[in-house]
Amino acid sequence: MRVSELVAASGVPLATVKYYLREGLLMPGESTSATRADYTDLHLRRLTLIKALAGIGLPLPKIRVIVELIDEPRESLFDTLGHALAALPPYLEPVREGYPRAKAALDRLGQIYDPDYPAVAQLEHALAAAEDVGIPMSDERLRSYGEHVLAIARIDLASMPARSPESTVEYAVLGTAIYEPVLAALRRLAHQHLMATMLLDPDADPDADERAHDR
Amino acid sequence: MRVSELVAASGVPLATVKYYLREGLLMPGESTSATRADYTDLHLRRLTLIKALAGIGLPLPKIRVIVELIDEPRESLFDTLGHALAALPPYLEPVREGYPRAKAALDRLGQIYDPDYPAVAQLEHALAAAEDVGIPMSDERLRSYGEHVLAIARIDLASMPARSPESTVEYAVLGTAIYEPVLAALRRLAHQHLMATMLLDPDADPDADERAHDR
Repeated sequence: MRVSELVAASGVPLATVKYYLREGLLMPGESTSATRADYTDLHLRRLTLIKALAGIGLPLPKIRVIVELIDEPRESLFDTLGHALAALPPYLEPVREGYPRAKAALDRLGQIYDPDYPAVAQLEHALAAAEDVGIPMSDERLRSYGEHVLAIARIDLASMPARSPESTVEYAVLGTAIYEPVLAALRRLAHQHLMATMLLDPDADPDADERAHDR
Repeated sequence: MRVSELVAASGVPLATVKYYLREGLLMPGESTSATRADYTDLHLRRLTLIKALAGIGLPLPKIRVIVELIDEPRESLFDTLGHALAALPPYLEPVREGYPRAKAALDRLGQIYDPDYPAVAQLEHALAAAEDVGIPMSDERLRSYGEHVLAIARIDLASMPARSPESTVEYAVLGTAIYEPVLAALRRLAHQHLMATMLLDPDADPDADERAHDR
């Protein structure tokens, strides 16, 4: 396809397409004349990925990390995914003192603690913020959050495509970021649902439906 | 206490304290002379709340909404909480066309659908974004997310203090916002944990420990 068709199909403006080409994020098309080049579905797919990554707040250097990992994956898929996921925001400064809150939480949950994995710093930061506002993580809440989040993560991974390293990396990066706001919104709506049941009709048992269903 | 002690205890700079006083967010202290006023623990608590709300990204007009709801709650706690929680970011424009994706998801989960509740617009937006990047919400994922998020919300509400409307509103607003990054970080770490188990040692069964525990 021509560049104009690539622009139409991707919804990315021509100037931005040219910029991605200059920056080497989008691979060049095949030249068909001095001023024309031909692009394929591979270009469209790459452009769609770059657009999606920019849309979830990744700056260009981080998009480059992901695109390069897709083009030249590490030896193990675990390594490739780890490096790709590390390119997601938020970008926190690593601290030399370690992450005591995150380590204690992960130890208690029986999960891997790798201080170099960026989500550890993110968890430390989030737990410290909860302390700061006077709602520190309790053991009970941690156990419950840990259990239910693990179940959610299992569903996420069960849907991960394995047909190519490219599709796996794309899914992991986009799925991680794009479902965080879904979870946040669902939690707020679950609060509303439970509060309506408890506060507007104190006699109602929010679990009654569920139990009837289990029978 | 004097204003200097209020500054020291809250960690809020003097200029900012004065600004909050001028704006009426912080109630005036009791004048003890032409240039001095006396402040109490109530002032410190209010200041700590304003600081925490500003820290999670609320602009001043939204902080004012919450502070006013604490000072003059609505008739029902459900109403008061609903309005206070509606002051949290993100701030999306309401749309006239309704929220078809959010409505379908909530109907399927058997939860309340109230288009005026801001988390509905947030869910619609998040589900549309997931579609845009080619990872639309599946029925299976929705069912699983809904079930586990409801369990998480139940734990959140079980810890909600009821000793005063003020403490309930504070907990609801801060707890909603401050635990969203905790959940996001835990989910990323759960992915890492599961991937390590599955990809580095394909024979391992990540559920084995759990099942042994259940026995």
